[in-house]
Amino acid sequence: MKALKFGGGLTFVQNAAVPIRQGEALVQVTCAGICNTDLEIVKGYAGCGKCNLCIAGDARHCPERTVLGIKGRDGAFAEFLSLPPQNLIEVPESISDEAAVFIEPLAAAFNILEQITITPSSEVAIVGDGKLAQLITRVIAVTGGRLSAFGKHDEKLELMRSAGAQCFHVERDSEPKHVFDVVIEASGSARGMSIALNLVKPRGVIVLKSTHHNPTLLDMSLVVVNEIQIIGSRCGRFRPAIDFLASGGTDVRPLISAEYPLEEGPLAFSKAAAPEIMKVILRVS
Amino acid sequence: MKALKFGGGLTFVQNAAVPIRQGEALVQVTCAGICNTDLEIVKGYAGCGKCNLCIAGDARHCPERTVLGIKGRDGAFAEFLSLPPQNLIEVPESISDEAAVFIEPLAAAFNILEQITITPSSEVAIVGDGKLAQLITRVIAVTGGRLSAFGKHDEKLELMRSAGAQCFHVERDSEPKHVFDVVIEASGSARGMSIALNLVKPRGVIVLKSTHHNPTLLDMSLVVVNEIQIIGSRCGRFRPAIDFLASGGTDVRPLISAEYPLEEGPLAFSKAAAPEIMKVILRVS
Repeated sequence: MKALKFGGGLTFVQNAAVPIRQGEALVQVTCAGICNTDLEIVKGYAGCGKCNLCIAGDARHCPERTVLGIKGRDGAFAEFLSLPPQNLIEVPESISDEAAVFIEPLAAAFNILEQITITPSSEVAIVGDGKLAQLITRVIAVTGGRLSAFGKHDEKLELMRSAGAQCFHVERDSEPKHVFDVVIEASGSARGMSIALNLVKPRGVIVLKSTHHNPTLLDMSLVVVNEIQIIGSRCGRFRPAIDFLASGGTDVRPLISAEYPLEEGPLAFSKAAAPEIMKVILRVS
Repeated sequence: MKALKFGGGLTFVQNAAVPIRQGEALVQVTCAGICNTDLEIVKGYAGCGKCNLCIAGDARHCPERTVLGIKGRDGAFAEFLSLPPQNLIEVPESISDEAAVFIEPLAAAFNILEQITITPSSEVAIVGDGKLAQLITRVIAVTGGRLSAFGKHDEKLELMRSAGAQCFHVERDSEPKHVFDVVIEASGSARGMSIALNLVKPRGVIVLKSTHHNPTLLDMSLVVVNEIQIIGSRCGRFRPAIDFLASGGTDVRPLISAEYPLEEGPLAFSKAAAPEIMKVILRVS
């Protein structure tokens, strides 16, 4: 079958073996989105099983677990993949394949609402204007909370604005300090946490979504003096995300920057890493 | 009146003016404890009204507020001090003046129990073995939670052990990784937060008590991947601390390292800053 292979570099191959695993389902892939974890893997951060990320992940889950495209299991940039049938979730007809690509990150956005309470009187700031920040904005908008977004890409901020956020350019606009009940840090950059600490009000909450791997120089005394709560937030359940998309809760099409055939995978990856780019989708079959 | 004065250096003066403020109570001081904030002030970190600490504090309270010995109001290392009568709390006869010195930091320890729930099945780690860590240990012991302490001073760790904690020397013993439901970081050092991140289990809680002013290099991706919650914790209500001391809940006398007359204040301060020293008390009248 056709597939992208990663081993040092990323290459397209015509003759990869179709994955057959006893007792599992063989899944035909129609399209698959390139996410930041994919970009990080290609840069070499993950997959070793020995880095802090892997070790920390192991502590939470079974050490024998596998993760599609990350740990002990090939990924979805291929004509077929193998998964245990209990891992499969039916996607309603009303969700296009392209929109279904957003279910996993959208679930990560919905996870925030399972960790904290946001009401229409909440002042909420989102740090970042990338793919995840965009989805989070659309999820938080459902709560009625007042939204402010802090980013540095004009086109992406414009999309945040269309989703209901008041937008600030972190390099041009002066930021309102210590006024937000909730700050969601989804910038993917080391600077995001410092910005979040300046935005959140005393006794406020910072939800941390970024998993960049640059140790960050932080003045944690602010966390103590202002009794701030920081909550790490990772993945979420798929159900709320599927229901949201199925009910037309948001239109994710403006978040798709480009679509490439699987054969052009390496090119698609280099495009996906550019600053102004949002989701890049690989068309497989 | 006799008083310690800070202005660049710390000096004892015989003829300070007795503070008289309209509508306030004049309080005669019998003894007063030197805390880490006092040591930090003498080192020059606070009192400027312009540092992050002051600005952040202002955001939470009235900008016009004064703080005894910190902001706009002389401190307690003097024969008399002035306070609004509504700020005065009667200390029961059963609490000695020396024990009453511990009410404020003990209240800060009790504050933790208003922020998180600790049960007898909780595995709790305390990072640090100084004055505040000692008081926290005694407060957490009341919950029945299983206590482990991580410090680097043998005598202080011995005191933690006597209060019911299993003790680890952070430079000699290997630490159990990612097993604690709750980690309370009260080391006062930049390294404490990194230790806490290694101790806390996935979805666990780190309570942050240290207000050292060294920006700390932290890998916050662990917070996200393990969905850790970090809670800044500052001061507390005095009532639980007073009730605890009045009922004989703990004996704080082993935490008093030395007592000096006010005249020897500068010497007392230099002693209080030594690594093996706990609370130093100034006898005023």
